[in-house]
Amino acid sequence: MSQKKELPLKENIIELACPSHGGLIREMADKYGIPVSEMLDLSASLNPLGSPFDHPLGGLDLDRLLEHAMERFGQYPDNRYLEFRKAAVRFLDNGLSVDNIVPGNGSCEIIRLVAESIVDQGDIVLIPHPTFTEYEQQCNVAGADVRYIGQDDIFDLSDDVLGSAKILFVCNPNNPTGKLHKREDILSLVKRCVSNNTLLFVDEAFIELADDPSQTITDTVVDNDHLFILRSLTKDFAIPGVRLGFGVASKTIANTLNTARLSWNLGSIPEEIGIAMLNMDGGCNSPYLVASRKAIENDRNYLTERISRIRKFKPLPSTVNYILVDISASSLDSVELTQRLAAHGVLIRDCSSFPSMGEDFVRIAVRPKEETDILSQAIGKVVVEKAREDAKADLVSMLESGDAVPCGGNLDCPYYPCHSCEDQDCTLCFCPFYRCEDERTGGKWVDRSSGGKVWSCEDCVLVHDKDVVKELLDVLSEDEDMDRNLKKAWDKVLEPRL
Amino acid sequence: MSQKKELPLKENIIELACPSHGGLIREMADKYGIPVSEMLDLSASLNPLGSPFDHPLGGLDLDRLLEHAMERFGQYPDNRYLEFRKAAVRFLDNGLSVDNIVPGNGSCEIIRLVAESIVDQGDIVLIPHPTFTEYEQQCNVAGADVRYIGQDDIFDLSDDVLGSAKILFVCNPNNPTGKLHKREDILSLVKRCVSNNTLLFVDEAFIELADDPSQTITDTVVDNDHLFILRSLTKDFAIPGVRLGFGVASKTIANTLNTARLSWNLGSIPEEIGIAMLNMDGGCNSPYLVASRKAIENDRNYLTERISRIRKFKPLPSTVNYILVDISASSLDSVELTQRLAAHGVLIRDCSSFPSMGEDFVRIAVRPKEETDILSQAIGKVVVEKAREDAKADLVSMLESGDAVPCGGNLDCPYYPCHSCEDQDCTLCFCPFYRCEDERTGGKWVDRSSGGKVWSCEDCVLVHDKDVVKELLDVLSEDEDMDRNLKKAWDKVLEPRL
Repeated sequence: MSQKKELPLKENIIELACPSHGGLIREMADKYGIPVSEMLDLSASLNPLGSPFDHPLGGLDLDRLLEHAMERFGQYPDNRYLEFRKAAVRFLDNGLSVDNIVPGNGSCEIIRLVAESIVDQGDIVLIPHPTFTEYEQQCNVAGADVRYIGQDDIFDLSDDVLGSAKILFVCNPNNPTGKLHKREDILSLVKRCVSNNTLLFVDEAFIELADDPSQTITDTVVDNDHLFILRSLTKDFAIPGVRLGFGVASKTIANTLNTARLSWNLGSIPEEIGIAMLNMDGGCNSPYLVASRKAIENDRNYLTERISRIRKFKPLPSTVNYILVDISASSLDSVELTQRLAAHGVLIRDCSSFPSMGEDFVRIAVRPKEETDILSQAIGKVVVEKAREDAKADLVSMLESGDAVPCGGNLDCPYYPCHSCEDQDCTLCFCPFYRCEDERTGGKWVDRSSGGKVWSCEDCVLVHDKDVVKELLDVLSEDEDMDRNLKKAWDKVLEPRL
Repeated sequence: MSQKKELPLKENIIELACPSHGGLIREMADKYGIPVSEMLDLSASLNPLGSPFDHPLGGLDLDRLLEHAMERFGQYPDNRYLEFRKAAVRFLDNGLSVDNIVPGNGSCEIIRLVAESIVDQGDIVLIPHPTFTEYEQQCNVAGADVRYIGQDDIFDLSDDVLGSAKILFVCNPNNPTGKLHKREDILSLVKRCVSNNTLLFVDEAFIELADDPSQTITDTVVDNDHLFILRSLTKDFAIPGVRLGFGVASKTIANTLNTARLSWNLGSIPEEIGIAMLNMDGGCNSPYLVASRKAIENDRNYLTERISRIRKFKPLPSTVNYILVDISASSLDSVELTQRLAAHGVLIRDCSSFPSMGEDFVRIAVRPKEETDILSQAIGKVVVEKAREDAKADLVSMLESGDAVPCGGNLDCPYYPCHSCEDQDCTLCFCPFYRCEDERTGGKWVDRSSGGKVWSCEDCVLVHDKDVVKELLDVLSEDEDMDRNLKKAWDKVLEPRL
């Protein structure tokens, strides 16, 4: 009898890591001890108008829907999901039939279904980075050899590279960059995938919320067995608590995937809700979705403008309901910024889990202006908090090194001199007394560009005078308790000068 | 450039067939033009007490639950599903922790998750037939080499056979046979699986509805990486419209599978509903489930007794809320019986899709007595319908052959003579005039043992008299229109004798 006791799991499964996601509102609420109702979630990218059940333009009666769905609790769903698939066809409104639709318990299930239906252990798949992390996760579950390519290389892949792969994933518009590829570019890629016998997986999960949803290519799928398009209902209808999406493919592919999918992947309630949303008059051009795109454009401009006012935060152009922000120049990396904001009850998406993004980027959802204001105030607080802590740490380290002498002006700093004074001493680059709230110093409350008030030190140069700095350093070196030292230094060195 | 145009799908996926299931109430309602509300579904095996939302012993308020769940529509579910897993632990009440629980969007998702986490293309899995068809389906999706073994061979597998397999599936109690294995037998099998490095997958989807749910082995999973147990909420709480189940495994296995499962496989509503049901006081011994088991035992005895009264229908012993019926001796096979009953609005499960069962078995859900009565009346109708059609077809064929002469008594028939008359002629074994409802013949309405009335021909021997038969055959040969012939034969041959 064999005595092997290995774990009975495949290597690729044992090696899986949990994919990172936004929208972890409960987990963060637990972690930071903040009630869920007081958290602001800009890490999940949902329609800022809210669901069509909450918005007047949606005009859907959730109570009636649920009542109808509840009558079917006691029956297995009709696992052909014909009504849902019919509604998806109506929503797309471009000549497809129910035979082209594959219903899914959210986008991830559909990505997994495609991966496991195509990928054998060791098969190559191509994923342009940075992009939605679930392609990699689901391909890893299927045992794929995941190869990353640059987003800019999508259209320049050699036939050798393209032909070596079973699947090429393209997210359009791309998550997290917000870039929308043109229909004609994707269509030329489709042709190349066909001739290289590679499946092109086009993820259009956000396309209804993009500035120009007519860039969809769902209409071209009819006779093409090398094209699969993913649509999601979670984002455009702002209902992530209900898991819903669907795939669009040729009849041959869709039929096979409908056989391979779980027999009952949608419950009665999600199915009813999905049918109602997809059947809204106008489909992708319903008054609700048209208004959503208009709101996203306005709110995105406002968000971009607010973020661009934050020093060293660089919002990148986007076509959809989230923006990517380059914070590589900031003293905060994406992990720290995200964690500090979460402690203030504001969630944004740290992009460090996206391959190739390092800790230089965050993704922020486009939300109504009031929420954007709360975000920019929270970022302001966090930046100040960080600067204060850094300054204090620098000071402590300088004092501990026993080398506490004024360092003079930091002439290499691009902001030097940041105060209107001669011979500005930069030893206390960030004032350890901030914010003293003592107007005798010259400091004062001013209006913040993003709303609210901020304590401005522009007209206070006390801690940038070489002699003051020397005296302060002497006092601050006296004791091990920095807080006590700071109080003493204020009383002894600054108070007499006010 | 390669011009290959093959379908970009794996062979094992292309070859998949749709698994057969019960519970196709909408599909059948469409097919037979009967409103869903008028269909009686005994093909899906659900708790006959109905859901704990409908039953007074359940004591759950669905409206309040839904209201609570709806507040979370706009948030992604907390994908750790800690509350649900905690509730599952509380329900099992045997020393496990949340780290042992894997939540699933119904049982099938969990079967698939295990299969795809363990099985590589070509790996052997062992499935004892007949059993739940989804093991084979999900293993086929994973590319397994499925080997069937007999149900009776489970405990007698050689180490060679057991050791060659990645997974052995055991359904306890078994679907569709209703047999419950003893805990000690399963535990001895667990040991053998451990020493052969094979995962034992024990499906306890129906165990809460079985006569003795204490045969569960979930408590033994703690340190065993070669055991996985499936539990379902669909059957015991009669809510197949909500997809819910969970897996029970060692921390190592459960943790890996929680990483490998879909990030958000449960929506907010199913999660809330699942939490409420699992948290019912008493867990598996809640008043609701205790009453359910009591009702199942009573209703199963009633169903068994009713079915055993139907000639050539043989109900097999069962420990749970469905019974298997051997109809191999009947003139109806399982496909025809099922279809004919569906046309009468009653659904039972044709077992011909279970490997090795042929068309000899049907599975019938244990339901309240009123529903069992409707079923047995419908079977009565269908049996008569079939016999009439067969008799008519035999007659037509005899007339067409030009060989229409009385054949005398069928002395080989075990029922000969079935009427109290001398020289019974059996040419018209089944009377083509049934049911004439004319008491002058000697026929009369009598009480049916299963309730209702039936037209009895016991005391009518008209069509078994050789001379009458000859005259009838002459008239019936006159024309091509059988209905017209029958009318003429009645008027000319029978009427004068009444």
